[in-house]
Amino acid sequence: MKIDGKHFTAIWLDPTNSEVVQIIDQRYLPFGFQIKSLSNTEDFHYAIQNMLVRGAPLIGTTAAFGMYIACVEARNEVGFNSFIERAAQYLKTSRPTAVDLFYAIDLMTNAIFAKSNIDEQVAIALETALNYQNKNIQNCLAIGTYGKTLIEKLASQKPNKTINILTHCNAGWLATDDYGTATAPIYLAHDAGLPVHIWVDETRPRNQGARLTAWELAKHGVPHTVISDNAGGHLMQHGLVDMVIVGSDRTTRNGDVANKIGTYLKALAAYDNNIPFYVALPSSTIDWSISDGIKEIPIEERSAEEVKFIQGLHQNEIKKVQLFTDESPASNFAFDVTPAKYVTALITERGICSATEKELLNLFPEQKQLLDA
Amino acid sequence: MKIDGKHFTAIWLDPTNSEVVQIIDQRYLPFGFQIKSLSNTEDFHYAIQNMLVRGAPLIGTTAAFGMYIACVEARNEVGFNSFIERAAQYLKTSRPTAVDLFYAIDLMTNAIFAKSNIDEQVAIALETALNYQNKNIQNCLAIGTYGKTLIEKLASQKPNKTINILTHCNAGWLATDDYGTATAPIYLAHDAGLPVHIWVDETRPRNQGARLTAWELAKHGVPHTVISDNAGGHLMQHGLVDMVIVGSDRTTRNGDVANKIGTYLKALAAYDNNIPFYVALPSSTIDWSISDGIKEIPIEERSAEEVKFIQGLHQNEIKKVQLFTDESPASNFAFDVTPAKYVTALITERGICSATEKELLNLFPEQKQLLDA
Repeated sequence: MKIDGKHFTAIWLDPTNSEVVQIIDQRYLPFGFQIKSLSNTEDFHYAIQNMLVRGAPLIGTTAAFGMYIACVEARNEVGFNSFIERAAQYLKTSRPTAVDLFYAIDLMTNAIFAKSNIDEQVAIALETALNYQNKNIQNCLAIGTYGKTLIEKLASQKPNKTINILTHCNAGWLATDDYGTATAPIYLAHDAGLPVHIWVDETRPRNQGARLTAWELAKHGVPHTVISDNAGGHLMQHGLVDMVIVGSDRTTRNGDVANKIGTYLKALAAYDNNIPFYVALPSSTIDWSISDGIKEIPIEERSAEEVKFIQGLHQNEIKKVQLFTDESPASNFAFDVTPAKYVTALITERGICSATEKELLNLFPEQKQLLDA
Repeated sequence: MKIDGKHFTAIWLDPTNSEVVQIIDQRYLPFGFQIKSLSNTEDFHYAIQNMLVRGAPLIGTTAAFGMYIACVEARNEVGFNSFIERAAQYLKTSRPTAVDLFYAIDLMTNAIFAKSNIDEQVAIALETALNYQNKNIQNCLAIGTYGKTLIEKLASQKPNKTINILTHCNAGWLATDDYGTATAPIYLAHDAGLPVHIWVDETRPRNQGARLTAWELAKHGVPHTVISDNAGGHLMQHGLVDMVIVGSDRTTRNGDVANKIGTYLKALAAYDNNIPFYVALPSSTIDWSISDGIKEIPIEERSAEEVKFIQGLHQNEIKKVQLFTDESPASNFAFDVTPAKYVTALITERGICSATEKELLNLFPEQKQLLDA
């Protein structure tokens, strides 16, 4: 999407040197915009581990590009293939819970090892990484195209009125290469001239909404307002929200959705006020092996320090402040599960369906054979 | 309640000089504990206006003591009664939306003007202010005594297990002179040896939970954990919450409850998980003239700066940091309304009742005549 009028993706090949990859260093957002060049395996490991890049799809693309750069490095090493194997193992340790990381690295390794000479291996690595990224972007674009029809429908029901959409966390282009998942319908609707306005949940404790989603929307020029996570219910009660769109970290085959902590509360409020609650997701987040999200999806418990401290700008410097005393402990579950019954529909790269196993299998019939097997 | 073993109320007469009133200056909590002396009408106006004291019941008590100190001042002025009238008007401007403020000042003025000599007027002012505070405290104690029975019942159902109670914002003793409303049952249960543990919603944007409720509980020695406002739903889904108790800023005669923004989302989650959701309130918060909270209770919209900036401790100094850029606007509704159907019961100073007009009128039959009139 655009940053002050110029098109960006979250990761790209350096246009002046195809053996270097560049990223937006997201640690400095929203107050600093810094581009960082990655030119060896260590750089990639560091970028993923230290969250210079984050978001499952973008972690996958970054790992894919990392394996390509590993091939570039390996050309100068004794034992190309063993260097690649070590690089793959090493990169897998950068974010051990990220499924997309393993998937992308294995995909790259298989492609590289399918070729027998080094020039071909480097070439296929670059091609595979670019294809991987392109597929991510095409998935988001498809989600956006399907999701935009839902916004168009609402717009036709209230002509010349603002369409208010609430979102939680950052399921935006910064997390996915381009377009985003939850934000893809929003960007496409906005670019098509539909009068959308976005309520951005700040999304405590890490504030990805206030820091990243609000920044994305501001830079692309989409009208939006940041709210505390507590506010959405009141807005919905008073007709100030027309739809909710969120992303998904993991989806069960019957449509339960694990997403950033607090998503479930917004789903309940949407349900109570007859407001559609949509989940936008690439099918890679669907775990076809599970059907009870609350029982089967383990929820990561992160450091209590994320609740206790917050960082922001103070006199042009980023400072971290403590919010309560050391006499009070804190707890920090990172995700929650929204039961399928509260999800109006899922928006996938193959189309829109209800949050049920039956309709999901209609869109992804190839999974039926795997489930039957 | 206790601060490190010593009993405190939120406001008290200076034990060494009965013409001075002392308060805990709540602006410095939780990192600084400062006692401030108030010895003239300006001091009281400043304390209320700048939120050195906050919480409806405490604002009322502070205003009552302020009128007593106005009498002390007026003794040295020409025209005692006109000084009192000016002081009353002046103190009413300190927090123009606080109903308790007007009520307490009018009560004091009527008591003062009912006496005809100055010594009697000063004496009745002190007596009325002390009675006003005592009634507040007795109301909280009654709420606590009734509410404690609910905790005892839960404790008898799961012997030797921790009773986990979630609360939102600060309906604690810092807001009410002593005991608090939502916290009164908690303190009494804890002091009686029941194994309670409190989940404290941080309560963005002003973080009264993390700053005040957590501090109160820590100082009194009640086990507790601070959580982001997003976390409660997940905790409830996983059996980690046994009951919710919150306060109320305004209650309709049929039991709709206006309380700090985000309360409604917790009520929805409690309902979805069959967890009792109690509202503790002195009957002074009941507005018998209205019955539809969502339509009839105007919701204060506060400065967006409260969402955009947050303060905390950085290297032993209180600093305010900015959380997102000036390119993103913010919105800040301060309260929301929880419909009566999501309220398991109301805990009042006269007992526990369902959130219905009929049961409220059973507890407060004198209101029936007023409603019929």
